[in-house]
Amino acid sequence: MSVTDELLAANERYAASYPGPLPLPPARHVAVVACMDARLDVFRALGLAQGDAHVIRNAGGVVTDDEIRSLAISQRLLGTREIVLVHHTDCGMLTFTTEDFHDSIEQDTGVRPHWSAEAFSDLEEDVRVQIRKILDSPFVPVKDSVRGFVFDVATGRLGEVR
Amino acid sequence: MSVTDELLAANERYAASYPGPLPLPPARHVAVVACMDARLDVFRALGLAQGDAHVIRNAGGVVTDDEIRSLAISQRLLGTREIVLVHHTDCGMLTFTTEDFHDSIEQDTGVRPHWSAEAFSDLEEDVRVQIRKILDSPFVPVKDSVRGFVFDVATGRLGEVR
Repeated sequence: MSVTDELLAANERYAASYPGPLPLPPARHVAVVACMDARLDVFRALGLAQGDAHVIRNAGGVVTDDEIRSLAISQRLLGTREIVLVHHTDCGMLTFTTEDFHDSIEQDTGVRPHWSAEAFSDLEEDVRVQIRKILDSPFVPVKDSVRGFVFDVATGRLGEVR
Repeated sequence: MSVTDELLAANERYAASYPGPLPLPPARHVAVVACMDARLDVFRALGLAQGDAHVIRNAGGVVTDDEIRSLAISQRLLGTREIVLVHHTDCGMLTFTTEDFHDSIEQDTGVRPHWSAEAFSDLEEDVRVQIRKILDSPFVPVKDSVRGFVFDVATGRLGEVR
C-alpha cells in the first residue's frame, strides 16, 4: 500500500464527519504565503478554520510570478485584503545554493533549469525581499497589510520581521 | 485589530502546546500540490500529521515553473517520492478566462501580466494536464506515483482522476 493510498483511506474518515459546503471567498479575507515545509501546518499554526484564508505555499515561501498570479486572483476575484508571509527556522533553502543545485541537476539530466532555485542565506532578510516583491507588483492591488514572519520550528511561535 | 493580529494571538495559543522540533525531511516522503482554496485544509483532508509531507499550493493547484522548482527541491534534496495533486469542485479558476482577467488588470493598472492566469474550464481534464506537466519535466526525478484527485467541497471526499 503506497502512502497515497493511506492518505485516501484517511480522507474517507475525514469525509465521514465533514461539515458540508462553505462559500468560495475566504471568510477572513486573508491570503497566506508560506514555505511548503512539512512541519508548518498553516491552518493550526495560525488558528485558521476551514474556509478562512487562501494558503499559497512553495519551497521557501518565496514570491515568484506564480505567487503574484495567485495573490492577484485572491485579491481581485475573491476579495482578500491582508497578506501574511511565513518563512521558518531550519529551512532547506538555507542549505544549498542555486548554482550548486543547478550543477547537480545538469549533471544528472543534461538540462540546466531556466528558473532560479530561490535559495537564500539570511532568513529575515529574505522575508523583507519577498515582501518588497509583493509591494512592488502592479498586479496585487491591496497592500495595506502585508506582514512577514518567521515560524520557529522548535517552539511553534511566529516572530514578526520588521 | 486586523485579522493578521488575530492570527498572531491564535499562534500564541498554538505555541503553548507545540510538541517541539521534528526532522526537516518529510516523514512520509510525499509532496502534495493543491489549490490555495480556503475550504481545503490539506493536513486534515489527507490525514497528515505535522512533519509528514510537503504542501505546495497556488491558485488552481496548477503546475508552473515554481511548482516544478518546489518538487525538484522536495525530491532531490528532501527525499519525497510520491506526488499527490489536488483540484476541487466549485473552483474559482472555472469562473473566468485568462483573457478577461488580463483585460481587467490592464484596464486598472495599464500593465498586462506576462504570466498566464492558468484558468481552466474542465476540472478533471486540467488534473490530467497538470500531471502530464510533472511527468514531462526533466527536473522531477521520481515519477512512480504521481496521482491526481478532485476534492469535493460539498462532501470532503477525494475522487481520483484517471
